[in-house]
Amino acid sequence: MPVFTLAEIAEHIGGELQGDPNVKITNVAEIDKAKAGEITFLANPRYREYLANTGASAVIIDAKAGVTPAIPYIQAIDAYYGFLKAFLLFNAPKKMLEPGVHPSAVVHPGARVGRDSAIGANVYLGANVQVGERCQIFPNCVILDDSSLGDDCILYPSVGIRENCRIGSRVIIHNGAVIGSDGFGFAPYQGKFHKIPQVGRVVIEDDVEIGANATIDRATLGETVVKAGAKLDNLVHLAHNVTVGENTVIAAQTGISGSTKIGRNVMIGGQVGTVGHIAIGDRVQIGAKSGVRKSVGDDEIIFGSPARPIMKTKRIEAALNSLPELLKRVKKLEEALGK
Amino acid sequence: MPVFTLAEIAEHIGGELQGDPNVKITNVAEIDKAKAGEITFLANPRYREYLANTGASAVIIDAKAGVTPAIPYIQAIDAYYGFLKAFLLFNAPKKMLEPGVHPSAVVHPGARVGRDSAIGANVYLGANVQVGERCQIFPNCVILDDSSLGDDCILYPSVGIRENCRIGSRVIIHNGAVIGSDGFGFAPYQGKFHKIPQVGRVVIEDDVEIGANATIDRATLGETVVKAGAKLDNLVHLAHNVTVGENTVIAAQTGISGSTKIGRNVMIGGQVGTVGHIAIGDRVQIGAKSGVRKSVGDDEIIFGSPARPIMKTKRIEAALNSLPELLKRVKKLEEALGK
Amino acid sequence: MPVFTLAEIAEHIGGELQGDPNVKITNVAEIDKAKAGEITFLANPRYREYLANTGASAVIIDAKAGVTPAIPYIQAIDAYYGFLKAFLLFNAPKKMLEPGVHPSAVVHPGARVGRDSAIGANVYLGANVQVGERCQIFPNCVILDDSSLGDDCILYPSVGIRENCRIGSRVIIHNGAVIGSDGFGFAPYQGKFHKIPQVGRVVIEDDVEIGANATIDRATLGETVVKAGAKLDNLVHLAHNVTVGENTVIAAQTGISGSTKIGRNVMIGGQVGTVGHIAIGDRVQIGAKSGVRKSVGDDEIIFGSPARPIMKTKRIEAALNSLPELLKRVKKLEEALGK
Repeated sequence: MPVFTLAEIAEHIGGELQGDPNVKITNVAEIDKAKAGEITFLANPRYREYLANTGASAVIIDAKAGVTPAIPYIQAIDAYYGFLKAFLLFNAPKKMLEPGVHPSAVVHPGARVGRDSAIGANVYLGANVQVGERCQIFPNCVILDDSSLGDDCILYPSVGIRENCRIGSRVIIHNGAVIGSDGFGFAPYQGKFHKIPQVGRVVIEDDVEIGANATIDRATLGETVVKAGAKLDNLVHLAHNVTVGENTVIAAQTGISGSTKIGRNVMIGGQVGTVGHIAIGDRVQIGAKSGVRKSVGDDEIIFGSPARPIMKTKRIEAALNSLPELLKRVKKLEEALGK
Repeated sequence: MPVFTLAEIAEHIGGELQGDPNVKITNVAEIDKAKAGEITFLANPRYREYLANTGASAVIIDAKAGVTPAIPYIQAIDAYYGFLKAFLLFNAPKKMLEPGVHPSAVVHPGARVGRDSAIGANVYLGANVQVGERCQIFPNCVILDDSSLGDDCILYPSVGIRENCRIGSRVIIHNGAVIGSDGFGFAPYQGKFHKIPQVGRVVIEDDVEIGANATIDRATLGETVVKAGAKLDNLVHLAHNVTVGENTVIAAQTGISGSTKIGRNVMIGGQVGTVGHIAIGDRVQIGAKSGVRKSVGDDEIIFGSPARPIMKTKRIEAALNSLPELLKRVKKLEEALGK
Repeated sequence: MPVFTLAEIAEHIGGELQGDPNVKITNVAEIDKAKAGEITFLANPRYREYLANTGASAVIIDAKAGVTPAIPYIQAIDAYYGFLKAFLLFNAPKKMLEPGVHPSAVVHPGARVGRDSAIGANVYLGANVQVGERCQIFPNCVILDDSSLGDDCILYPSVGIRENCRIGSRVIIHNGAVIGSDGFGFAPYQGKFHKIPQVGRVVIEDDVEIGANATIDRATLGETVVKAGAKLDNLVHLAHNVTVGENTVIAAQTGISGSTKIGRNVMIGGQVGTVGHIAIGDRVQIGAKSGVRKSVGDDEIIFGSPARPIMKTKRIEAALNSLPELLKRVKKLEEALGK
């Protein structure tokens, strides 16, 4: 573990230090678990009560927090983001793969691997595959013909990328995720389903993260697109021709049906499902387990199945608690009126 | 890209051509995106408005469409199916693997691989595995002992087939799907769960397609069966001893519990769940996110959780919008009656 | 197939035999399918009607069943558990892998493999990985640096274990499951999401079973824990810092959000979702498709979305059938009262 002084940490996170600049810090920790020599943070006011008794040697606070800790502190514009930067200082990502192509990897002669990239054991790179610089492709990944990766990507073990997909830079894909599987398209004819070739592709832009065992289908024609900065959790499913906007976050086990377009900075909870061919606006928030059946305008907050404005669903849920009783009450009224 | 005349396309799809048979066509396209030299189709009446202004050089229409395009057209019994046949003419599947066994594949001496099949890099075929003719087994697939594949199958990368399973011909299995994992069966005894060996198998019949990262468990005793022509989307789960009937379609993230029997030509939406040990009749339709808790007769259309006849669920959903207000209205009635 | 006498079977399962001890038994079977030479069981009273006509040569019954079969029978404390023991007698697990390291496996020089363990084809073991004795690691599994397995584990093909995870003894992990993928944690700052390093780990205790393509995320800091004897079905998702208690059972496609703590001997149905940061008590039962949004005390039985006490949800569901009609009835009452 490295050691930094408070002055070094304050400079690194761009915050203003109050207290002894020479205090030595050996790690980061949560406010209720921190020990001497560690730095913690206070972002959520709910944790303010822990501040007086924290064992930490220093704390990162919001510039506007309105508290004056008894221990040395660093004021940052955003305490949580400042803490993250400190976190990274003490927990620099460890490279587990040596640069170069492992002798057991199978790399087509037409594939190209950029400088300082690592191609792990038993990896397969098909014809014309291009891998940028400083990428880490962990063991047993398979990238089929004509697909490309930008720079600084990490593909954890057993990721599968089908042919002709485009992956940007700084993309992280977790174990077992699948990019570019065939869309689910069939023409029914005389009681049987006839496969429609899926000849489009998937485009993943820069800074995207994709969870373990997630699946992103290629387009029938054209492109399935995940735009820059979007984050998808484990076991998420995107059907063919879906678009996910910039910096949109989708939690685990959610499924988006074909051709649906999702805006930017949208937040979608876990186990949500949407029908196909709808548009979800920018900055929309969708509660967990919602079923979204029609298009949603910018900035809406929806919840439930069917998804309704969140307060509407909350009121219905509360009213449902009274429904069995309501039936009896109405029966009594009918009796009183001789109905 | 190949080039065909309209006469050649009409003959290939078995339709009747109206217009110049020598027009050269270079590709297929959607009606609102087609350009000169391309052929499109009109199946859904909603798209009829695009017909007058399409840039396409020809169009495939239903014999009964009741329209007379200004451009050359081909009348087909089913325009969409005709378009699919034209689509395939221009987009013949490209073989990415060379026939033969890749030197890095590990093939048990007792395994047999049919003529013109390709066994990709880092594939494992266990003892007595049999692979038919013209199959493509992509890199990193694993087929354990005594399992068999028919002819013309495609297994995309990292598919896993456990021991003693039977896969028919023309079966397509997408990346990471698992066939024959143990059923989830335990005998509770004195507060612990004791594993029941799962010694049955999975049988996948001809022309089945299975989505990426789907899981199909083997039977405890006997067989889990997916019958001919059934199509399963990504992340679908079939538990032990399930039967899926002929030409049944199951959308993404749906789960079928143990021993449930699903009929033929059933259509199941995404994120549906069913309990175990029930029977779902032929041609049933089940809306997305439904929870099916009891058996369903032939031809029913059900929806919701619990699944009810679709119109019943729709009426309940509509009524729920009024429920919070209804509570107030009943309170007023009670007050008016002095209750 | 081996052959045992009834006397041998009775001794093996610790039951009391009534009838000819020399009857030869060749296999186990279900009561309605058993043939001569087979032994069956009667645990569920619903199957009692099959007893008179079973083709089996013997039957295992509960000591308290209160029936006297016409055929030889073994009285056991728990008939189903007794049957399981007989089942295992006839269906001893077959080892598909030879002990030793397959020549195509890539094992880091610092990794250690215990006696009689089998490391299959194309497996990767990273630096300092430790595998106990008698483990079977099937082809194409990948275990990254510093992770360890106890004794007698089975990892089916293409399982991925990330760095620094701890797996106990007698753990079974099915195809494609992922242990230790990054938790889904980001700090929002100026409209973008900044990855929080996930530097914790996953601890899987003894006798756990994990289904195909399930995903278990590592902790941000600290540990995600699955305690001894817990059983997780296919496609289950555990987020970072979750704890699952001893002998808890979670059915397929269920997702548990971050930092939620689940007690022991809990039973969770399929497609359930829970929010994060809640506590679920011991012996809780949660019905399929439930959405759990707040903590649950010991021994509760809950169901629905939102999850309520099961009888409450059942009453609401029943009342919903009358809701559309109720609206009309209230309207009539209002009219009668001139409202």
